[in-house]
Amino acid sequence: MSDIKKVVLAYSGGLDTSVILKWLQDTYQCEVVTFTADLGQGEELDPAREKALKFGIKPENIFIDDLREEFVRDFVFPMFRANTVYEGEYLLGTSIARPLIAKRQIEIANLTGADAVSHGATGKGNDQVRFELGYYGLKPDVKVIAPWREWDLLSREKLLAYAEKNGIPVEAKHKNGGAPYSMDANLLHISYEGRHLENPSAEAEESMWRWTVSPEAAPDAPEYLDVEFENGDIVALNGVRLKAHEVLAKLNELGGKHGIGRLDLVENRYVGMKSRGCYETPGGTIILKAHRAIESITLDREVAHLKDDLMPRYASLIYNGYWWAPERKALQTLIDYTQTTVNGWVRLKLYKGNVIVVSRDSKTNSLFDMNIATFDDDGGAYNQADAGGFIKLNALRMRIAGRLNK
Amino acid sequence: MSDIKKVVLAYSGGLDTSVILKWLQDTYQCEVVTFTADLGQGEELDPAREKALKFGIKPENIFIDDLREEFVRDFVFPMFRANTVYEGEYLLGTSIARPLIAKRQIEIANLTGADAVSHGATGKGNDQVRFELGYYGLKPDVKVIAPWREWDLLSREKLLAYAEKNGIPVEAKHKNGGAPYSMDANLLHISYEGRHLENPSAEAEESMWRWTVSPEAAPDAPEYLDVEFENGDIVALNGVRLKAHEVLAKLNELGGKHGIGRLDLVENRYVGMKSRGCYETPGGTIILKAHRAIESITLDREVAHLKDDLMPRYASLIYNGYWWAPERKALQTLIDYTQTTVNGWVRLKLYKGNVIVVSRDSKTNSLFDMNIATFDDDGGAYNQADAGGFIKLNALRMRIAGRLNK
Amino acid sequence: MSDIKKVVLAYSGGLDTSVILKWLQDTYQCEVVTFTADLGQGEELDPAREKALKFGIKPENIFIDDLREEFVRDFVFPMFRANTVYEGEYLLGTSIARPLIAKRQIEIANLTGADAVSHGATGKGNDQVRFELGYYGLKPDVKVIAPWREWDLLSREKLLAYAEKNGIPVEAKHKNGGAPYSMDANLLHISYEGRHLENPSAEAEESMWRWTVSPEAAPDAPEYLDVEFENGDIVALNGVRLKAHEVLAKLNELGGKHGIGRLDLVENRYVGMKSRGCYETPGGTIILKAHRAIESITLDREVAHLKDDLMPRYASLIYNGYWWAPERKALQTLIDYTQTTVNGWVRLKLYKGNVIVVSRDSKTNSLFDMNIATFDDDGGAYNQADAGGFIKLNALRMRIAGRLNK
Amino acid sequence: MSDIKKVVLAYSGGLDTSVILKWLQDTYQCEVVTFTADLGQGEELDPAREKALKFGIKPENIFIDDLREEFVRDFVFPMFRANTVYEGEYLLGTSIARPLIAKRQIEIANLTGADAVSHGATGKGNDQVRFELGYYGLKPDVKVIAPWREWDLLSREKLLAYAEKNGIPVEAKHKNGGAPYSMDANLLHISYEGRHLENPSAEAEESMWRWTVSPEAAPDAPEYLDVEFENGDIVALNGVRLKAHEVLAKLNELGGKHGIGRLDLVENRYVGMKSRGCYETPGGTIILKAHRAIESITLDREVAHLKDDLMPRYASLIYNGYWWAPERKALQTLIDYTQTTVNGWVRLKLYKGNVIVVSRDSKTNSLFDMNIATFDDDGGAYNQADAGGFIKLNALRMRIAGRLNK
Repeated sequence: MSDIKKVVLAYSGGLDTSVILKWLQDTYQCEVVTFTADLGQGEELDPAREKALKFGIKPENIFIDDLREEFVRDFVFPMFRANTVYEGEYLLGTSIARPLIAKRQIEIANLTGADAVSHGATGKGNDQVRFELGYYGLKPDVKVIAPWREWDLLSREKLLAYAEKNGIPVEAKHKNGGAPYSMDANLLHISYEGRHLENPSAEAEESMWRWTVSPEAAPDAPEYLDVEFENGDIVALNGVRLKAHEVLAKLNELGGKHGIGRLDLVENRYVGMKSRGCYETPGGTIILKAHRAIESITLDREVAHLKDDLMPRYASLIYNGYWWAPERKALQTLIDYTQTTVNGWVRLKLYKGNVIVVSRDSKTNSLFDMNIATFDDDGGAYNQADAGGFIKLNALRMRIAGRLNK
Repeated sequence: MSDIKKVVLAYSGGLDTSVILKWLQDTYQCEVVTFTADLGQGEELDPAREKALKFGIKPENIFIDDLREEFVRDFVFPMFRANTVYEGEYLLGTSIARPLIAKRQIEIANLTGADAVSHGATGKGNDQVRFELGYYGLKPDVKVIAPWREWDLLSREKLLAYAEKNGIPVEAKHKNGGAPYSMDANLLHISYEGRHLENPSAEAEESMWRWTVSPEAAPDAPEYLDVEFENGDIVALNGVRLKAHEVLAKLNELGGKHGIGRLDLVENRYVGMKSRGCYETPGGTIILKAHRAIESITLDREVAHLKDDLMPRYASLIYNGYWWAPERKALQTLIDYTQTTVNGWVRLKLYKGNVIVVSRDSKTNSLFDMNIATFDDDGGAYNQADAGGFIKLNALRMRIAGRLNK
Repeated sequence: MSDIKKVVLAYSGGLDTSVILKWLQDTYQCEVVTFTADLGQGEELDPAREKALKFGIKPENIFIDDLREEFVRDFVFPMFRANTVYEGEYLLGTSIARPLIAKRQIEIANLTGADAVSHGATGKGNDQVRFELGYYGLKPDVKVIAPWREWDLLSREKLLAYAEKNGIPVEAKHKNGGAPYSMDANLLHISYEGRHLENPSAEAEESMWRWTVSPEAAPDAPEYLDVEFENGDIVALNGVRLKAHEVLAKLNELGGKHGIGRLDLVENRYVGMKSRGCYETPGGTIILKAHRAIESITLDREVAHLKDDLMPRYASLIYNGYWWAPERKALQTLIDYTQTTVNGWVRLKLYKGNVIVVSRDSKTNSLFDMNIATFDDDGGAYNQADAGGFIKLNALRMRIAGRLNK
Repeated sequence: MSDIKKVVLAYSGGLDTSVILKWLQDTYQCEVVTFTADLGQGEELDPAREKALKFGIKPENIFIDDLREEFVRDFVFPMFRANTVYEGEYLLGTSIARPLIAKRQIEIANLTGADAVSHGATGKGNDQVRFELGYYGLKPDVKVIAPWREWDLLSREKLLAYAEKNGIPVEAKHKNGGAPYSMDANLLHISYEGRHLENPSAEAEESMWRWTVSPEAAPDAPEYLDVEFENGDIVALNGVRLKAHEVLAKLNELGGKHGIGRLDLVENRYVGMKSRGCYETPGGTIILKAHRAIESITLDREVAHLKDDLMPRYASLIYNGYWWAPERKALQTLIDYTQTTVNGWVRLKLYKGNVIVVSRDSKTNSLFDMNIATFDDDGGAYNQADAGGFIKLNALRMRIAGRLNK
């Protein structure tokens, strides 16, 4: 183990990664670089600097970066261009943040001349895979330290004991009331796992949720929202042009207020087990609905169906951690190509957990042709007799087979 | 045209098919057999018999069949086993009824020795395709009469004039207020098209909806519902065992009460145009959510993903009218095979438009393994070190490529 | 019919399109523009000009274009980048030429101010679809005249009678010996249909084939061939750099000499029937084999599998005539993206119908890593123990299910 | 390691598995059960019994089973029903045998009360995965011993030294001339890997091949062969009804004689690396060609295309070792369903490496309709005018988009 010289740790400042920081120093006797990212998780990052300094990390080895705009612009929005949903329901809030963290961690390793990287994900989850596939994809010979797969602190009791022994502050909530939920937050979502969620037949507690009110507690009056798209991405809300991360922050605020975007599901992890998670994705839930609506009038049918056919595969790639893999990039090329016509606006009604599309239009790219679609006389825009031939030829193979069966 | 001797007409008893009945008699000088199906559309069918008799149809040529149980058991439920959704949103309420009507119509043609069949679908829509692919698939050499593609009554004015001239009663609603919505109803849904919905940027009127209250008007208190599955189909609600069509009727009642299942979308028709439709599918919306939930604990990951990958294709087949085609049957074989383990129950919370899964379990088929999934010490059920090798080999191709790129 | 003013006819100079030319003049009383393309079919095009002049076509309305380079560079090669094969066997030689003809025909229509286009494809085949989808896609409101679907010359006897009546020369071969094969030729292939091939249990006659000798008649000595690729396209043969169409011409010569590329199959037409065709594709057969070989060392596994999964769909799009459709372009974007690493060379052995890959390498893009692949001691390049964890986690879901089944 | 009591070893009787046998006895101090399968690899199995006895294996612990019929009937034929090919070329000869070996090994473990199984596959290849996924799928808690991933005999020299030290006979070929090819044989194929094949630009030596003559050395006269199918499987050759394994043995003989079925390729292993392999699959090459031909006249177009779309996924499942996984079984259900109409015969011509289809027919299930396909007057069987409407509606979406682009 002595061949590690410098390691870049994805450091949140919380209990687990603080223990890891200390454990790395003790176990590998190596220099540690801490990297703390602002992905919009809504926590103060300054304490992370203070804590790192206390562990003896050199100031030049402490990186705290605001990645919010990059996160939404280059990761969240490209993913939503595909209407991406894993297993029919999960909006991939955790999955989509990992590749960015991995990328920045590798950049910092290159900047600081580090030969290793480390993270705080456990050996049972998907995040270890997402981090490490990113590391290896971007820096093939980097060394990876995954403490949860190496150490003997596998129970919460042992971890707390290690912390206390090493003077790492443990908040009261960790000591009382048992283990907290395992949570992850960024601008796209908060996730909750563990505790009594481990029993999939147990209902989640109302007190668990943080960003959204319950539909019951949401306002009794609906709120309308106009969403404007350019090339498949939202660029303005209610006529106000915003940066990507501002769009998502605003949608989170609106969605949270109206009880939108809660999800309670059992999912299939890449490492082979089923797990139960609860998610709050208020803004993402609104984006998905609005994006499908704008595509419904601006995208060719067969292009839309091609995207739908490929979506589950694309979602699995992201879920499983293959953001930096060539097949994800190839699919992205196709997806992005299709979005050049996805321009226009959608009007939504937000009400007690519902996102309702009430109207959609595109000045430049609407493929909706009222003259053809009308039930009234269309003046010859569409020749109904054509349908006879269309049906006859589509039925031909079935008719030939039917005659044989007689 | 004189070679048609006897035609079986899909007859609703409404204005359009009454005009068609008369037009068939006049144009083809042939015997007409009327077939009226109870698919749970919620209308009295006796008037259809009265009207048919008035047109001189012989009593033995009037068929009025209650197909509700067959409809839900053999068409709706098999479709939901695949979590079927067209273009991400549409639950295929109209599409799934057509193949049954076509099947019964052909059976009646065979019973009565008819050489032709006829329907009231227009030349612009999908239903003509669904009917006729069914006819041709089940009786390859049947003659098909599609009046809307043949006659000159293409505007509503001409149709009304023809009706009045021939003594066909026209309800007041048709005379005043312009054309009504083009509607279709059965146990699975009601659809609305036409009128001002032809403009996709116009919001639907609240007064249009028939089966559901608005979320705003729904009760302020949520309602819990237990749903029990066997082989992927719902067999009991709140512990009461029901027939398939009773399940759906009850779910419609509950969903309608809680403002569940409204949808307003622009879809891509098989005949090549975009059209805007509004749908109420209260029970179907509940089934979809519950079915995904029970599958989440009882279905293998890769089987679930295979189903997700195939679903859009299966949905398009149904939407486009290929229920009786061999490729749909082949897919159904696969889908049904996967459902043998889909047994268990799901608890739902219904509230103002929301269907919320709060709990799920299976006594016989749960693949959720708490010992493995736990964040606590698992006593060796899962060896975290295995993940290292798993990641290393999954990353190998990316590492080799990465070294090349350096 | 009188509203057509000027029509651009895809004119081969042969009997059928000469009859069409005359028929257009007579039936539509309109100006005819003839367009004859050199796609490498190996026929003299000058006679087409002479014939057109005889029909009174104005010299400025006679277009004879050498499209060979454009054909191979922009249509054939892009298609082969996907290893495209329809129904497991057919290399799409006819299908891939139609979109180029349609494109040029529309360009000429725009140049000459024509309002209509016409072609000589029958109402039973795929080519009518390929032509017309191209026309409509590139010029949505163009009028299309498909004489075979309009006229009453549906039997060969009537066609010959019309030709004789109108002084159109009929070659002796057409008069004697019954109808000739229906053939189509371009740089990629010759196809044969009709005559006794209409019986799929009848063996094709040796005398039918034109470009290839039989394997039996091919040289007794094999010939080696080095093929060099850049971005997925062949750029040199045996070290000699060639233009795209020269590559294909040379490969046809070599393949033809060695009895390579004959195919006899029953295929499924888009219009719904099965048909039997024989094809000679000597150069294309070599390209396909060589392209797969160069991809085998330069393409990432998952990218290759993604391409394989999408290929049948892409092939059907081309077969069915959707070259100019947006979904084909979207797929092409993905396919072309993957080819940037497909650089290197392949050595082939040609012998009596066989194309045998004996060697392949890439100086710049080989992902084949001998250090890792070796059966000998690899010095730690690959840690065999990793495979244990890899298998364990991949097996996990099956183990959990297996325990349940006990 | 002492907790293993009895282990079932897949024992070929060759050098490697003999070393493993001894190593298991020494290392685990456990009882060893040997299992030797006749899969048609063409080797005497009696010596395996002699050798096992010499190692002190009890007679009741020596299993030598003739699995040829089961292998072809339940594994090879079902796989060919899907026209299965991995990465466009590989016929999966090794992959398809592993699940059967695993199944029988587990059966023997259950019979003998063994708690562990072992195999001789290395830690770099696919076979370890195929064996172990089979073991775990069929007996979730079995212990697996993979000596190549555990021991320190990783180089051939060490292995030979261990053999000599323990009195295990080493054939001369292993001592001289360096390591032999790594080979695998069964009724479907022989594979060759390693040695100078590790360099993908090195041509394979003619002397390597065992089952097939070279095309050059094959007879100068072609041979015709009639193949008869029932439900997608070959049941008779030249009119002689044969058992499944007899069919394959006979086809191997014929194919080998005519130089058919050699393949030299670079493939992508599941464990992440590229490897070069050479394969002889004479009979399988003939089956694939014949099966596609019989399907071409008996399978519906869309069913055939569905199969083609799913085939690469099915092939990957088999290649990667997931034969016993539920998703493979689900796909098999679909595939088998489609084969009920695949009845008829195909005539092939075998000549110097070529398998040429010259004729095909089905008395009961031909969907080829000459009346419709004919170029001659069809007497109205097909109405060419129908094609106009068919094209118009298929073009509609492109026309609407085209108008927008203007």
